[in-house]
Amino acid sequence: MQQYSSVLLERAVGEFAKLPGIGRKTALRLVLHLLRQPLPEVETFADAIALLRRDIKYCKVCHNISDSEVCEICSQSSRDASMVCVVETVRDVIAIENTSLYRGLYHVLGGVISPMDGIGPGDLEIDSLVERVCTGGVKEVIFALSPTMEGDTTNFYIYRKLAGMEVSMSVLSRGISVGDELEYADEVTLGRSLMNRTPFTGKTY
Amino acid sequence: MQQYSSVLLERAVGEFAKLPGIGRKTALRLVLHLLRQPLPEVETFADAIALLRRDIKYCKVCHNISDSEVCEICSQSSRDASMVCVVETVRDVIAIENTSLYRGLYHVLGGVISPMDGIGPGDLEIDSLVERVCTGGVKEVIFALSPTMEGDTTNFYIYRKLAGMEVSMSVLSRGISVGDELEYADEVTLGRSLMNRTPFTGKTY
Repeated sequence: MQQYSSVLLERAVGEFAKLPGIGRKTALRLVLHLLRQPLPEVETFADAIALLRRDIKYCKVCHNISDSEVCEICSQSSRDASMVCVVETVRDVIAIENTSLYRGLYHVLGGVISPMDGIGPGDLEIDSLVERVCTGGVKEVIFALSPTMEGDTTNFYIYRKLAGMEVSMSVLSRGISVGDELEYADEVTLGRSLMNRTPFTGKTY
Repeated sequence: MQQYSSVLLERAVGEFAKLPGIGRKTALRLVLHLLRQPLPEVETFADAIALLRRDIKYCKVCHNISDSEVCEICSQSSRDASMVCVVETVRDVIAIENTSLYRGLYHVLGGVISPMDGIGPGDLEIDSLVERVCTGGVKEVIFALSPTMEGDTTNFYIYRKLAGMEVSMSVLSRGISVGDELEYADEVTLGRSLMNRTPFTGKTY
């Protein structure tokens, strides 16, 4: 498309423009900003990204992003291990942590069941959730998936899988507006919907 | 501010959030996007940025970003070396190149005279421009600085420096709206203002 006087510049702008929501003009602005920074700072930036991708681990219990085998949240003894909050992504964990109202653990599914996108139950961390509940110690599973049809479907699928086990299930109260992304709900609304969670009856309402 | 379950994640988000116009939520979104990409692609991304900062050169003639001592534009024999277009930044070179209406050379000042920001003539590539004109071969200098007070001041400063030399001076026609940034003008307006450039009389109008 655009032709710059430098192949190095062209390449860096092209790489930035691959990021979601970053067009070529913004990419150029970011790259030229980095060019004005001292070399060590830019190297720190580049290293932080490469290191993250190379060394990041996923917690073997809850599948949250972690620096070690078991994540910080799962290894904190002060947290209530009898509650497991089921979320789609790491971003949702961060969003709920920011409310400071939840002291239980998490389970990151990695998405929701979505036949349109070719995502079935086998692509998600559902079996490991069922196993976690089977092992015992979990008294309540809180569904905190996005309030969409796919989220509801996933809730229901897990509900069926866990039916008969000694575990109560609840779902975030619909304080959050339908069709919205969980991570963009404000802390107050999100916190309240956690406090007012309602028993899960298997109905999608 | 926010606390993530991973130091690596925290660091990468922090680095992205340092970029202009990128907040912590956007930074997190970009970092999680990169986490989903294959390792080689993320390394390519990181390398492109580090390499750019390490190996980039500035053309010794026009101070444009370049991979070699003399940039691609300056070394093209097909371009008209008798015209020099004076711009603030590399972005302006790219914006003018995109109009495909200019076949002369450039001179990147690196900014405009702005006493408020502590930028004097000595901080800009003005002396090297005067030298370029002194050396001969330049018949016309086109001022393409932003149409602000600082841009006008810089035009006038250079005009005084070049006065008496055998060179004509012109300024972009005011088709571009006053107070706007040059790089965001659309190609048609920017191209027309290049074609309709007016003789520079030393007045700021």
